Amino acid sequence: MVNIALIGCGRIGRMHAELVQANPRSRLVSVHDVNPDAVAALIGDAPVRAAASPEEIFADPDVDAIIVASVTSTHADYIEASVAAGKPVLCEKPIDLDIARVKACQAAIAGSDVPVQIGFNRRFDPGHRALRDAVSAGEIGKLVQLIVTSRDPSPPGRDYLTGAGGMIRDMTIHDFDLARFILGDDEPVELWATGAPLIDPGMADIDEIDCAMIVMRTAAGRQICINNARQAPYGYDQRLEAVGSDGMLQSTNRTPHGLKRFGAAATEVQQPYHTFFIERYRDAFVAQLSGFLDKVSGQDADIPVFDDGLKALALAEAAYRALSSGKAERVEI
Amino acid sequence: MVNIALIGCGRIGRMHAELVQANPRSRLVSVHDVNPDAVAALIGDAPVRAAASPEEIFADPDVDAIIVASVTSTHADYIEASVAAGKPVLCEKPIDLDIARVKACQAAIAGSDVPVQIGFNRRFDPGHRALRDAVSAGEIGKLVQLIVTSRDPSPPGRDYLTGAGGMIRDMTIHDFDLARFILGDDEPVELWATGAPLIDPGMADIDEIDCAMIVMRTAAGRQICINNARQAPYGYDQRLEAVGSDGMLQSTNRTPHGLKRFGAAATEVQQPYHTFFIERYRDAFVAQLSGFLDKVSGQDADIPVFDDGLKALALAEAAYRALSSGKAERVEI
Amino acid sequence: MVNIALIGCGRIGRMHAELVQANPRSRLVSVHDVNPDAVAALIGDAPVRAAASPEEIFADPDVDAIIVASVTSTHADYIEASVAAGKPVLCEKPIDLDIARVKACQAAIAGSDVPVQIGFNRRFDPGHRALRDAVSAGEIGKLVQLIVTSRDPSPPGRDYLTGAGGMIRDMTIHDFDLARFILGDDEPVELWATGAPLIDPGMADIDEIDCAMIVMRTAAGRQICINNARQAPYGYDQRLEAVGSDGMLQSTNRTPHGLKRFGAAATEVQQPYHTFFIERYRDAFVAQLSGFLDKVSGQDADIPVFDDGLKALALAEAAYRALSSGKAERVEI
Amino acid sequence: MVNIALIGCGRIGRMHAELVQANPRSRLVSVHDVNPDAVAALIGDAPVRAAASPEEIFADPDVDAIIVASVTSTHADYIEASVAAGKPVLCEKPIDLDIARVKACQAAIAGSDVPVQIGFNRRFDPGHRALRDAVSAGEIGKLVQLIVTSRDPSPPGRDYLTGAGGMIRDMTIHDFDLARFILGDDEPVELWATGAPLIDPGMADIDEIDCAMIVMRTAAGRQICINNARQAPYGYDQRLEAVGSDGMLQSTNRTPHGLKRFGAAATEVQQPYHTFFIERYRDAFVAQLSGFLDKVSGQDADIPVFDDGLKALALAEAAYRALSSGKAERVEI
Repeated sequence: MVNIALIGCGRIGRMHAELVQANPRSRLVSVHDVNPDAVAALIGDAPVRAAASPEEIFADPDVDAIIVASVTSTHADYIEASVAAGKPVLCEKPIDLDIARVKACQAAIAGSDVPVQIGFNRRFDPGHRALRDAVSAGEIGKLVQLIVTSRDPSPPGRDYLTGAGGMIRDMTIHDFDLARFILGDDEPVELWATGAPLIDPGMADIDEIDCAMIVMRTAAGRQICINNARQAPYGYDQRLEAVGSDGMLQSTNRTPHGLKRFGAAATEVQQPYHTFFIERYRDAFVAQLSGFLDKVSGQDADIPVFDDGLKALALAEAAYRALSSGKAERVEI
Repeated sequence: MVNIALIGCGRIGRMHAELVQANPRSRLVSVHDVNPDAVAALIGDAPVRAAASPEEIFADPDVDAIIVASVTSTHADYIEASVAAGKPVLCEKPIDLDIARVKACQAAIAGSDVPVQIGFNRRFDPGHRALRDAVSAGEIGKLVQLIVTSRDPSPPGRDYLTGAGGMIRDMTIHDFDLARFILGDDEPVELWATGAPLIDPGMADIDEIDCAMIVMRTAAGRQICINNARQAPYGYDQRLEAVGSDGMLQSTNRTPHGLKRFGAAATEVQQPYHTFFIERYRDAFVAQLSGFLDKVSGQDADIPVFDDGLKALALAEAAYRALSSGKAERVEI
Repeated sequence: MVNIALIGCGRIGRMHAELVQANPRSRLVSVHDVNPDAVAALIGDAPVRAAASPEEIFADPDVDAIIVASVTSTHADYIEASVAAGKPVLCEKPIDLDIARVKACQAAIAGSDVPVQIGFNRRFDPGHRALRDAVSAGEIGKLVQLIVTSRDPSPPGRDYLTGAGGMIRDMTIHDFDLARFILGDDEPVELWATGAPLIDPGMADIDEIDCAMIVMRTAAGRQICINNARQAPYGYDQRLEAVGSDGMLQSTNRTPHGLKRFGAAATEVQQPYHTFFIERYRDAFVAQLSGFLDKVSGQDADIPVFDDGLKALALAEAAYRALSSGKAERVEI
Repeated sequence: MVNIALIGCGRIGRMHAELVQANPRSRLVSVHDVNPDAVAALIGDAPVRAAASPEEIFADPDVDAIIVASVTSTHADYIEASVAAGKPVLCEKPIDLDIARVKACQAAIAGSDVPVQIGFNRRFDPGHRALRDAVSAGEIGKLVQLIVTSRDPSPPGRDYLTGAGGMIRDMTIHDFDLARFILGDDEPVELWATGAPLIDPGMADIDEIDCAMIVMRTAAGRQICINNARQAPYGYDQRLEAVGSDGMLQSTNRTPHGLKRFGAAATEVQQPYHTFFIERYRDAFVAQLSGFLDKVSGQDADIPVFDDGLKALALAEAAYRALSSGKAERVEI
């Protein structure tokens, strides 16, 4: 049984708390949030401690491992403190919006073997992972192209957007990580990007875009395209397409259930896709926790680590440079 | 080049004429219909003779083979005349509504080796035939169940219905033949049927039904279900499902083209299916003619013969007895 | 919070225990099984009592409601005892293999308003329920035909089969209930059945069948077909098709995840379906418990009740009569 | 009846001849090819003239319209000659590999109202056209992204490749045209491209690529991605995806027929897609001819004209510049 502490009781923190408590291998023992009401609401009458501070958690000998789901600006600090305390940490993405801060964090934890896992949950989606496994197993021969389609059901509010670091650092960063996950050792070295507020032109007011296409080239010359939009009224659109010399693989969308309608105007009509990431990626979040518990328990685990967080951010940085320059930009780390 | 004569210039006759002319192996040379205007309209300015009578066709040395698409009551006569004239004949189904007349026709042509092909076009549908081939090749192990779904887009008019011999002789007869085609040597020996005018209760006035379910058992015990309806607003619904000890096969419906729509209310929305048998079974009609031309040319051809027309009608007879008796009825030939 | 006691710690009992503990509205407080080891294994170190007898559970004032997952022969007794104790009960199907015993149980609990829910979990499948709702809402006009496809991945062992009461009482009973769920007030009044051990002829030794087709007619004349097989190597095949005057609805199978493969030999290749009822109907079992908790808490709940268990068994009885007589049989209750 | 002459009797020329003869509105009257044997083989015993030279065709008063299916280097000359002769012409793409020659041809025919149609057959694919119509009708709100997937089943031989002007002028040119067809008046103004011989590295010997991704931006900022590969073992992969503020549209691939296989290893298994453009786009070629006949007959027709050939080539030119420069390039005409 792994005793878990949680820092951050917002929407995604509450989901982590539920998953920890539902997992037979883990137990939620301590929770902190800057808002005590959020802590009290999350705990209810369960036998979980309300920690007065993050420091109380880092020092708590009863805590085996930590999940960080607080605001982005605290992530690097809490990773450093977890590692210093010798406690494995699962931290939501991104590590920080400022790549310099990420590199400082990298230096601070260098040499430690305390597990640090970054919350790239999509790596754990059963369909996406099966695609990766099939690519790795050579099912489609040489991989030559990868298309990542990633569209949110609807844009977040302006409040969220102003602190999120821009669509590419906030949303596309998942797709960069997923591409790297599929590609294995052959890293993207160059990219080109186009982006604009096409759906809601008013986003120009906050210097934000809502549609983007990014093309990347790996060291071996493989071609990757990422298609992003902040609004997809038909639901959360999350697909992968891997093309190889011998075949193709697609990780496709799922509807909530299997009803199909047939009428005078249309056939094979299905429901809209899930409209919330917690529903769409529920299996992935469960498997993500399972991977973390494996790692905490000293087993092998195929999980995204600190370096993955840094590299995804480096791709986002290159994409912003490309948006400004109109040229292909090299990826620099 | 096979010189073809056509008797009957109605809707399906016109389709046969077009297919014969479009096929590089056949040529339409002569046409007859009781309505001279229909003949003139079909011929246009093409170099095709308007035969004054069927007899003129049977006697015409320039005619290699005959397609009969006239009214059902003439089919048996024209089959007999074609065979007597030594001319291969492709005759629309059914051979006759009266099984006694069919048996008399059988006796009349007994011993002849002039090819007689019955217009069970669905045997030539590429999906249905691929299913039959896969069953025959043992892909699903032992075949144990067969489900035939066959629903018309909309009911024919009362005029047609009163002369059609009842839904089961007119429509289900195709499904009986298709089942026999899939089953091979293991013939249905018993069946039970339920039918009623559920969609249009007014059909009771003409003693007609519009929905039926028929379950058959073969000599080896295999189970077959036929689901029929005279109205399917979503289009022509024509499916086969074969279940075996090792797997399942489905021959599914096709939409006219590959557009899919995704919106706030629905995803994967496709077009209605074809609403006309000539569109739905176009490939089948083309392949049916090809099979006839093969046979006429002395090649092997996997085609439905006279005996298939008789056996399908015997199944329809048994179904009508079952509808009356409420009991399982033996198939008698 | 509803305090639940569980009687029966077999495969399905363990699943119920997990669902009760994972549900924020319920808590598992007491467990009994004839095998104390099974109880100990289920409880582990959780704060749950091991009840020495079912009677201890019926008498326990801390128990709000009971789930019965013991062997079939105990179901009626435990339903009677639960009702006598004033404790709502969710009992696995069937109530009993002997319809006389079921009727005696019905008489014994007559007049009580203690909730009795029968474990027809498939009513809670999101796709099946959405189909029912769409039919009820008139989306397809008048319902005229219903096709229930229900095939198990692989047959149970001989030990199970000899005590299960025959395939139709054990397996088809779910399909009878599901048909009644879709049909609403218009009950099946007549049916005809064919069944045989087609996949494993050796089943004849224990007088068992492995394939069946059953056609039913309702009071209003609607037509229902149930297709059953005990072996479907492609996975658990669980589908509904409802045909109406204005359209069609299908509740289709789902694969475990969304990967599709495309190669030189095939396209759109998906995974086999789930091969275990707990995976296939997981959402349904969760919703079934939620319905029970609603009912226990005094809320409205759309759940299968005792009468549904009796009526499904009456359909199974009629089916066995039809298998013997070869005739359509009336449904008698 | 439109009298058609054909110049060029290669693979695609023979297909045009068949379509012309099968169409009730057209008749093939004259054919020319540099290879008299090809002419003789095409004509057979049909009443069609073998023209000794293209000039004979341009001068023939019995010829109403001309189809040019000869080698690319002759296209511009024959367009000019057809226009000079006052005969409508349907010319295969591309107009020429050299954009200067195309502009000279444009100047030569300027001011004429003789119809010139370029063989961008994909505009006539029923799925692609239905997508365009739905976009134009505002079904998905504001169009923001368009993804064109276009992969050939297998690469052409080296002989073909050396004369084809490079993959982008030969193959992608169809996708440029299709994108322009969907986009309407909002033309692509800038693009970026990456391409490499990833499947067959040996193509580097002839300076050829076999995989490419091209991202375009229109004047209004819309984003287009084209994914190309010269080898797709699963069949001809031809898809469109249009994303709008209110929904999404996909024009998807079709398999040759509707058989699906289900077994222990896989479900929903379909056939490979068509492996030849004539099969895949048969409906499109038929509709293309119909559009040409409409135009020749003086009716309105939504067809690709000379200017579309020039603009598609201009996009190809920009793509080659981008491949060299590694920068986004402006489209220049």
